[in-house]
Amino acid sequence: MSGAMRIFVDLPVDGAAKTLLLEGTEGHELVFPTRPAASVLHAAEPDSALATADIAFGQPDRGLIESSSTLRWIQISSSGFTRYDHPEFRRFVASHGIQVSNSAAVFANGCATHVLSFLLAQARQLPVALASQAPNGSPEWTVLRQASRTLEGETALILGYGAIGRRLVELLTPLGIKLLAYRRKARGDEGIPVVEDIGEALAGADHVINILPDNPESVGFFNAARLARIKEGAIFYNIGRGTTVDQSALAAALHAGKLGAAWLDVTDPEPLPADHELRSAPRCYITPHTAGGSGDEMSLLVRHFLSNLRAFEAGQPLAGRIM
Amino acid sequence: MSGAMRIFVDLPVDGAAKTLLLEGTEGHELVFPTRPAASVLHAAEPDSALATADIAFGQPDRGLIESSSTLRWIQISSSGFTRYDHPEFRRFVASHGIQVSNSAAVFANGCATHVLSFLLAQARQLPVALASQAPNGSPEWTVLRQASRTLEGETALILGYGAIGRRLVELLTPLGIKLLAYRRKARGDEGIPVVEDIGEALAGADHVINILPDNPESVGFFNAARLARIKEGAIFYNIGRGTTVDQSALAAALHAGKLGAAWLDVTDPEPLPADHELRSAPRCYITPHTAGGSGDEMSLLVRHFLSNLRAFEAGQPLAGRIM
Repeated sequence: MSGAMRIFVDLPVDGAAKTLLLEGTEGHELVFPTRPAASVLHAAEPDSALATADIAFGQPDRGLIESSSTLRWIQISSSGFTRYDHPEFRRFVASHGIQVSNSAAVFANGCATHVLSFLLAQARQLPVALASQAPNGSPEWTVLRQASRTLEGETALILGYGAIGRRLVELLTPLGIKLLAYRRKARGDEGIPVVEDIGEALAGADHVINILPDNPESVGFFNAARLARIKEGAIFYNIGRGTTVDQSALAAALHAGKLGAAWLDVTDPEPLPADHELRSAPRCYITPHTAGGSGDEMSLLVRHFLSNLRAFEAGQPLAGRIM
Repeated sequence: MSGAMRIFVDLPVDGAAKTLLLEGTEGHELVFPTRPAASVLHAAEPDSALATADIAFGQPDRGLIESSSTLRWIQISSSGFTRYDHPEFRRFVASHGIQVSNSAAVFANGCATHVLSFLLAQARQLPVALASQAPNGSPEWTVLRQASRTLEGETALILGYGAIGRRLVELLTPLGIKLLAYRRKARGDEGIPVVEDIGEALAGADHVINILPDNPESVGFFNAARLARIKEGAIFYNIGRGTTVDQSALAAALHAGKLGAAWLDVTDPEPLPADHELRSAPRCYITPHTAGGSGDEMSLLVRHFLSNLRAFEAGQPLAGRIM
């Protein structure tokens, strides 16, 4: 597997991250497209340089991948991989011996930290408290103070239990919150109790944390019926993908007072139009898909790629291999 | 120390907390004032029932305490005790054999959780992100995403290292943030490194967490000179007491862009007037002294009191004894 290889990189990489990349790929040939992608989440414009590469790193064009006869490994620069998650694509890469790996490990800490910020902002009533000028002891203040929580003894259910969920468990453990994972079938390596019955899982949780990826089984997973099974007053969080939620049903549950609040980092589409019903729904808090972000995100991505490059050169298994 | 005692309780206690209190004080006589205090932080109106009590629980009037010949123990219902922290009062209780204990242990978890919510809201840029509708990949989005942090590898300095600080260390540990305590003299039992030089401490921290109590040495501790020693772009948090900060100097540091942001749960006075300069200072986020709060706060307070009552009956040391 060794020898000089052509590495196609369509990420907007510069500064310290680019230096890292140049140093770490010495002995190989780096190829950049004419126009790199706008972010780690975006597809770049198709660029023919991909056609002759051995390795692609970023969000390379699916059509060009399928016309390549040289590609042996694709390192996707995101955690989600909806763009590639199709049976024909899986068949293509399998039949051509192309490995595909994602970068979930890079974003897990940022995503888990973002969920933690949502849980705590809700527990400490920050959206209300930051807007309040209530005097100590006033009725408004007493309501606000009594609505404030420490999370101790409450229950959080995690759906889509992977790298982000595991990191979240580490972050939440000292808060004394009870943690459960929902899986159709427990694997036994979760480290926290697993509930296999979705109805029971939703009915028992004070916090429902949706980290489901986007795939044919997850689309519309949180439909009206499942949202209705959530315990009254519970809080709903989504940092998976917006497509997993029936957003009209979610808005209705908030309007009806059935859900305590919703904290969303992902929606469908992104961003939601300014007049979308979720934008005016009460107690609905939306960040614009910034959960995975961190100041050193590009350097972390490059490090992850280089670590996998060393493995690829040595014929070792790739971290985060998905196909 | 045993036998039936008169217990004066000036807290606004009712519901489950009152039931707990009645059950736990059986065999003693409970005395309530005509008008209880408005909250656990407030002084109640002086009530002569205090004059004949053996024990007082709440925020009893200092003048009436000093005219009592029966009082043997005062359980203060707050963590701070500025109202009682005067040399003459200390002399009075010492000479009359009156023990005084506070309720810091009750509020430590709520306060530490509140600070954690501040640190994470800042790290994840929530005030900006919740107001943003920026499309993925747009310049505004890229700036926001790159400004988002995980706290990993950053440094937080804790000033006023007691029960809240210790709990905060537990909560922050899994985030991988470096923790330091400032103390004029390390005691050796801190569990985290202690910096004894205030200038060095302030210059080295990305997050300056002020939990100083209100006392003659702490008033104005964060004056213009000390605020100027804080590292450029660092974040300042205050959940101690508002009197410890020169608020004009703080507003100036925010206007000058010297401080990255300020998150305050306490101010002087509370609430700040609507036209106070901190209310219009950039990146200044204020909650109205709700840090210690939690839905079950009154029950937690009563449990703490009853646990101390058992100790008092048995002649054992009181938890949180301050005088």
